[in-house]
Amino acid sequence: MEGTTRLEAFSDGVFAIAATLLVLEIGVDSGTRDLDSALLHLWPSYLAYATSFITIGIIWMNHHNCVDTMRRADRPLLFLNLLLLMTVAFLPFPTKLVAQHLNKPGESAAVYAYAATFVVMAVIYNIWWRYARGHRRLIADDVPDTRIRAISRAFDPGPPIYAITFGVAFISPLASVFLTFAIAAFYLPSAALFERGGEPG
Amino acid sequence: MEGTTRLEAFSDGVFAIAATLLVLEIGVDSGTRDLDSALLHLWPSYLAYATSFITIGIIWMNHHNCVDTMRRADRPLLFLNLLLLMTVAFLPFPTKLVAQHLNKPGESAAVYAYAATFVVMAVIYNIWWRYARGHRRLIADDVPDTRIRAISRAFDPGPPIYAITFGVAFISPLASVFLTFAIAAFYLPSAALFERGGEPG
Amino acid sequence: MEGTTRLEAFSDGVFAIAATLLVLEIGVDSGTRDLDSALLHLWPSYLAYATSFITIGIIWMNHHNCVDTMRRADRPLLFLNLLLLMTVAFLPFPTKLVAQHLNKPGESAAVYAYAATFVVMAVIYNIWWRYARGHRRLIADDVPDTRIRAISRAFDPGPPIYAITFGVAFISPLASVFLTFAIAAFYLPSAALFERGGEPG
Amino acid sequence: MEGTTRLEAFSDGVFAIAATLLVLEIGVDSGTRDLDSALLHLWPSYLAYATSFITIGIIWMNHHNCVDTMRRADRPLLFLNLLLLMTVAFLPFPTKLVAQHLNKPGESAAVYAYAATFVVMAVIYNIWWRYARGHRRLIADDVPDTRIRAISRAFDPGPPIYAITFGVAFISPLASVFLTFAIAAFYLPSAALFERGGEPG
Repeated sequence: MEGTTRLEAFSDGVFAIAATLLVLEIGVDSGTRDLDSALLHLWPSYLAYATSFITIGIIWMNHHNCVDTMRRADRPLLFLNLLLLMTVAFLPFPTKLVAQHLNKPGESAAVYAYAATFVVMAVIYNIWWRYARGHRRLIADDVPDTRIRAISRAFDPGPPIYAITFGVAFISPLASVFLTFAIAAFYLPSAALFERGGEPG
Repeated sequence: MEGTTRLEAFSDGVFAIAATLLVLEIGVDSGTRDLDSALLHLWPSYLAYATSFITIGIIWMNHHNCVDTMRRADRPLLFLNLLLLMTVAFLPFPTKLVAQHLNKPGESAAVYAYAATFVVMAVIYNIWWRYARGHRRLIADDVPDTRIRAISRAFDPGPPIYAITFGVAFISPLASVFLTFAIAAFYLPSAALFERGGEPG
Repeated sequence: MEGTTRLEAFSDGVFAIAATLLVLEIGVDSGTRDLDSALLHLWPSYLAYATSFITIGIIWMNHHNCVDTMRRADRPLLFLNLLLLMTVAFLPFPTKLVAQHLNKPGESAAVYAYAATFVVMAVIYNIWWRYARGHRRLIADDVPDTRIRAISRAFDPGPPIYAITFGVAFISPLASVFLTFAIAAFYLPSAALFERGGEPG
Repeated sequence: MEGTTRLEAFSDGVFAIAATLLVLEIGVDSGTRDLDSALLHLWPSYLAYATSFITIGIIWMNHHNCVDTMRRADRPLLFLNLLLLMTVAFLPFPTKLVAQHLNKPGESAAVYAYAATFVVMAVIYNIWWRYARGHRRLIADDVPDTRIRAISRAFDPGPPIYAITFGVAFISPLASVFLTFAIAAFYLPSAALFERGGEPG
């Protein structure tokens, strides 16, 4: 199982660093005169920070749950994993765009970029998991099919849900970001921690 | 116990990265003519850096001591942990505010934000621990009640103490930051390393 | 084998952090009016990000495969490893140069610096591996010569390939960067995951 | 020995992150016209980067060698360790000062700050080790005195050597930085990897 240990160590590192770098996107112009009101007007930064941080945290929990079912990693899985990490590590950039442009000029483009990153992330994550579970290619023998199906049920809605947030961005960028936050705060935790009935440990 | 291993790996990563990112907040304008005096005038940055770094270090030690008593993690604990990490990873932002505004315009707002972050952190940390120890929900069987009570005694003063630093900020922002530093340097180490009588290893 | 565990922990940390820091190089001027077109004109940033990220990911996989064959580390290996990490951790800087100057003034200098960094990285990596495998100096007894030779076959083309990308930069900087991307996306994965026939785990 | 495992995990994280953050200090003004010559004039950045990176790498190796001799950690050791990490994590700031001011106005102040950081680091590191080895307080029973003395022989010259680089800074800041580099590149590796005769693994 050493191969998945290595996979997890590098992935954990990237997840933790990407999440922690998000804070660098929050900033006030150094020449600000009225800091009180400037801090209040930063609410899009706080919203984007919380949304991206919680999403990365949930992806991390999910990732462990999945890798936990695998008896080994192979070439395509490692490469798909690298693509997934590349997308997660990219997230601080569109997060910064949303933080700086929400409720300001450029709002639409910023939110399209943000929503598109989530769509790509969900699609790559789905392919990664489908590859691993297909024909139980990389699944350990002692993992029951019910557990694999439970994980898949949590994964399947990802791409369509984020496609909807992308669509909503065309109507209201603000609503799209709030929807992405709501997914992170309410839907993902319940879906991500699926199946193990209160004992994901 | 695998669940708590995963919990600790991600948490350790976020603690270490958040602490190390603090240094990025310290900066001198590139056009500075008199660097000697500029470096001396940076003392609020050094104070804020040391205060936040030591606090994160203590939180990290405490976190291990607590997780060490748990036999498993469950859904709510993982989600509360994510909220705790989100607050710790946010700390570099108010630290930067204090570094840039202490003894300058905007001082009050910066210190309110700093103190408020510590209050939120202490409250979430308390809820996290209360959830785990309630009815010995997640506590391992071989951990004596005396150890749990000793940890709780160290946790309980957190929210009121940081509420006081928040209150002091209304009278004197500078005093509030010095008080937060003193808590990190003197109170927390003794409280955090509680109970094990010189052998936290 | 404790010595190689320590070697891997620090190396993994540096690889993961260097890869994740790459995103900080991507940025839009805060005063941008037309964010849509600004995001499209950032394509050199996306290209440089993907190229460097995938290359670091592959180096990380390779590094594990190599260390896996060693029974111990010694002084010169640790120092060569430190030089390798220093070059990998430097990569975000030339990546930023390419992101900011490709298709703009300064393009040649930026791409020379980028290609030169890859040449230095490939050369140090080769020396590191040649030192370890020379006279089977650090190779564990149970590792067959065929495995060592297979790894070496994957390593040997590194320096000449990157020398070519450096040479191409004199004719066309843009072509040089695309070639480096192609190596990362197509050649390296197949070479890096060599030998273990789909079971690098 | 679990206590020292925790000590090492957090320390390794801070060492790896601090070293990798150093690259963020290297930068060219975005409005640079002649990038070729700008990259050549950045040599103080490269020098400062290499000096700090190698020094952190050596400190990391030393730290493992020391912790390896300990049977447990106790309160004062953990707190001294936190102070050591706080100094190491601070290093990117004076490194940036040297990178930006060497051979320019402010050179003296920048190099004083740089050299002073190394002095403080060496002193705290010495106190940390002296505390652990005093009366064999934290040393494991099976570690021979000869090994402890060998480590101490490598530690003792640290503070006076860096005191000299600090002194040299008053005569020639440039010479002080080169001396610090020479210590990192030539003296430290041989001293740090002491005692185990080519087999630090």
